[in-house]
Amino acid sequence: MTADKKIREHSPLEEREYHTSSVGLFFKVDRLLSKKESPYQKIEVIENEYFGRILLLDGLVQTTEKDEYFYHEMLVHPAFLVHPEPRDILIIGGGDGGVLKEILRYPVRSVHLVEIDSQVIEVSQKYFPWLSSGLKDRRTELVIADGREWIEGTDRKFDIVYVDSSDPVGPSTTLHQKDFFQNMKQCLNKDAVIAAQTGSLFYQLEEIQKKNEFLKKLFKHVFFYTSPVPTYPGGSWSFVYVSDETHPLQIKRNPPEGLKYFNPDIHRAAFALPNFLKEKLG
Amino acid sequence: MTADKKIREHSPLEEREYHTSSVGLFFKVDRLLSKKESPYQKIEVIENEYFGRILLLDGLVQTTEKDEYFYHEMLVHPAFLVHPEPRDILIIGGGDGGVLKEILRYPVRSVHLVEIDSQVIEVSQKYFPWLSSGLKDRRTELVIADGREWIEGTDRKFDIVYVDSSDPVGPSTTLHQKDFFQNMKQCLNKDAVIAAQTGSLFYQLEEIQKKNEFLKKLFKHVFFYTSPVPTYPGGSWSFVYVSDETHPLQIKRNPPEGLKYFNPDIHRAAFALPNFLKEKLG
Repeated sequence: MTADKKIREHSPLEEREYHTSSVGLFFKVDRLLSKKESPYQKIEVIENEYFGRILLLDGLVQTTEKDEYFYHEMLVHPAFLVHPEPRDILIIGGGDGGVLKEILRYPVRSVHLVEIDSQVIEVSQKYFPWLSSGLKDRRTELVIADGREWIEGTDRKFDIVYVDSSDPVGPSTTLHQKDFFQNMKQCLNKDAVIAAQTGSLFYQLEEIQKKNEFLKKLFKHVFFYTSPVPTYPGGSWSFVYVSDETHPLQIKRNPPEGLKYFNPDIHRAAFALPNFLKEKLG
Repeated sequence: MTADKKIREHSPLEEREYHTSSVGLFFKVDRLLSKKESPYQKIEVIENEYFGRILLLDGLVQTTEKDEYFYHEMLVHPAFLVHPEPRDILIIGGGDGGVLKEILRYPVRSVHLVEIDSQVIEVSQKYFPWLSSGLKDRRTELVIADGREWIEGTDRKFDIVYVDSSDPVGPSTTLHQKDFFQNMKQCLNKDAVIAAQTGSLFYQLEEIQKKNEFLKKLFKHVFFYTSPVPTYPGGSWSFVYVSDETHPLQIKRNPPEGLKYFNPDIHRAAFALPNFLKEKLG
């Protein structure tokens, strides 16, 4: 009886968080708020005493109430600090609304959010209203579509493209491949910047290395950067900054007020890479 | 039966890792290599498929075979990069030998290692010989004593002092208090630097804030810095750099070859602090 209770408390995470079940994070599930199976993935919302509400896709933490700002601020603000005039923005993925929220802090003209799974959006609007409120902003254009297919068909062009994908398994697999980034070129204005999440700094070095190799063939500037994310595997995350014209260390504006993690010193610091990663990137 | 097995696999960590049992890391215990109760603490060595050997004190991860370098390199090398002439070094704690190993990469004259618990040293020599080999170096002077008491009694003086304590509970409690840092002043040569671990960047902000307040009253330069440590709570750790004469950003030498994490860019980057921490430090 006691034993059963323990195991239930650690599910649903323990079995699938990380690529190996020999190590992981556990969260005590105080309440299971939602659990559904969309055509693309399993979507769960749990409540945890310390982290508040936690959104899981296929058993992997996407965002938590308590620490969402690390990931969302670090995906969004570096590109905004250096782009000369960011007006039209595209998010591939990002149905929870966290990336959108950070973008809308700036006086942009439009933000397209292209999410494959409408049920992620519904769940976020219901359980994470503070995160998803930007979906109602007049500048936001919501598109329910496969991001890879959508960029092939659109004639819109963008100043910054964010790839806020889940891991390279399930519906996000193609968002980690060369073709996707290659096709994105036709959607880019002059000076455009792409920023994408690229996985755990500690557990996904092979994926980072692979992405670096094909991105360097496609773009002039390819810079990886890092940030803590307490509830992601290994506690540190990697991102890639990609551009043909815009260098990531030529800062052109200050970030908005009210950020919890990011500032210009953090911007510069995030691009300093540890030896073990530099060796992989060559 | 299955349920029992699961729980055993997640112990001994799940109950005590972090300050709250509502979230934590789990490690599958492939083998329990050693478990003893010293006069000061419970000492365990487990083997895990991914992280290799893991040393635990009172149930908290101190070091793992796979990721020890993050913590040890980041505690040791920043002070060495900026001190004008580091010759005589003191480590308070550090019985596993990891900090000593990093120090001995430099041509120092002497290293005193003052560890309260001789059984930590014995366990490290037996199960972590690659980490503890510096204990046999002719430059090393091993002292089994309470660090707080030892610095009050010694007439030796040091260029760099490392405080490689465990958390502010159990035998390390006094190593986190004002008196300890105040008394240390009598052991410091001109230009001396103190570097100390100061806990989780995410979970121990109150402790960091408290330490900052009393350190600023004692020393001219008090700079916190950070690093990823995948197996520590929250995945990011904090350290404090303290000195009356030596500024942490005036780099005077290159680090030794062969480091896995640290380099001069990382040095500068580590001192960039997130907004939530800057607000706490005032």
